[in-house]
Amino acid sequence: MDQNKKQGTWFWNPNNFLPGVSIDCVVIGFDLNQLHILLLKMKDAELWLLPGGFVQKDEDMDSAASRILKERTGIKLPYLKQFHTFGNLNRRENNPVNNSDSPMAVQFKEMLPWLEQRFISTGYLSLVDMRNSKPTPDYLSDSCTWIPLESLHKLIYDHNMIVDKALEQIRNQINYLPIGFSLLPEKFTMKEYQVLYEEILKKKLDRANFQKKILKLGFLDRHEKQLKGGAHKAPYLYAFNKDKYNELLEKGIGYLS
Amino acid sequence: MDQNKKQGTWFWNPNNFLPGVSIDCVVIGFDLNQLHILLLKMKDAELWLLPGGFVQKDEDMDSAASRILKERTGIKLPYLKQFHTFGNLNRRENNPVNNSDSPMAVQFKEMLPWLEQRFISTGYLSLVDMRNSKPTPDYLSDSCTWIPLESLHKLIYDHNMIVDKALEQIRNQINYLPIGFSLLPEKFTMKEYQVLYEEILKKKLDRANFQKKILKLGFLDRHEKQLKGGAHKAPYLYAFNKDKYNELLEKGIGYLS
Repeated sequence: MDQNKKQGTWFWNPNNFLPGVSIDCVVIGFDLNQLHILLLKMKDAELWLLPGGFVQKDEDMDSAASRILKERTGIKLPYLKQFHTFGNLNRRENNPVNNSDSPMAVQFKEMLPWLEQRFISTGYLSLVDMRNSKPTPDYLSDSCTWIPLESLHKLIYDHNMIVDKALEQIRNQINYLPIGFSLLPEKFTMKEYQVLYEEILKKKLDRANFQKKILKLGFLDRHEKQLKGGAHKAPYLYAFNKDKYNELLEKGIGYLS
Repeated sequence: MDQNKKQGTWFWNPNNFLPGVSIDCVVIGFDLNQLHILLLKMKDAELWLLPGGFVQKDEDMDSAASRILKERTGIKLPYLKQFHTFGNLNRRENNPVNNSDSPMAVQFKEMLPWLEQRFISTGYLSLVDMRNSKPTPDYLSDSCTWIPLESLHKLIYDHNMIVDKALEQIRNQINYLPIGFSLLPEKFTMKEYQVLYEEILKKKLDRANFQKKILKLGFLDRHEKQLKGGAHKAPYLYAFNKDKYNELLEKGIGYLS
């Protein structure tokens, strides 16, 4: 959708969107040290939220998720898959947008009265190489910022719960999701991969066991050594082999791992 | 909802339901030999479908799924979790309900004109001990029947795709989902558990490796021997330990397995 269409009356006309359903994106990044999440701050208000939006009547839901993420954060074509749909009755209780007199919140309420009605939201998980991302806030937001997950504050609606559910799924499907492929640079050391696992699982892992387990899965290719410092101590670099990974998915990686 | 409410004008009034969203249940059973799926046949029509329905405006989505499953099949309180939301634009193309002149299809079209509009559907996976289930068709259906997955025929809408996606998730989360707990009798032999895995993964598994892998996960308790035939050959019985399983989920079963 072009910017005119988005800012014009088209965007504010509920007839252009599927009723009852929204999309919220949990965008996760890793700086080789900590997990981060990409958040928007609503214009002129102290309200933080996940990048989200509605499904146009003429688009697939998955396309809607890509479009929303691109429009609201500038991030294009990352790993993006739906992970859960949130449909509790009370999910938008204590709606801070209703209590805010920021111009944006007022505009929301006036232009989209159906925002005050119940809708369910499908959560999409996006895994992004944050060092190559350039988050850009849209015209509804003051900022679009990577926040370390450890310092995550209160978000609007049930967005904290949506984040928790996404992290739970990453934890439980850690070998099944292409986390290394999406969150790390193209080539990485086993140590960097291990830190990523440790951050997700929230515990220290044994180095030798980790390496054995991961290599056994068979979807990492070993490349040249990382040439830094003494060559005899240099660690090998690894890269994610997408074909082998997809082959494993076909066979049922849950059992094989 | 009582039967009067369900069959009366209340049920046919779209104002009582969340617009844009339906629920479809993929109910899987196992007879110690083959996987089965529970299907409804629409009254007076050769149309087979998943048990499904709509979300009432005053209920949580998860409660809606339990209610729908109970109303349409008689099955109460099984393992039931959402697994994916289907939102493709063309998901209800070639809508056989529109081309059917069965009284039920005509009633559907007349009473719920919004059924012809686009809606997304959240799929729920239910795992049922089929030997203890008594499927009962509702008043919209001729029958409610366990069909072996291998002989699954063409279903309405995108229901075959919903089934395929459910099976893909079971395959990839085979240790993560409580399949043994839900699909097997309370106590079972390692051989029975292995056949279940083989049916899901669609391949033969090595007996010794399987036993080692499964016992290492730590969520099976060994009980007495199954007393049949010569006692020295009798296999041990196992049962699923729910506490240990939940503990593993907390820790991240995806990595541990």
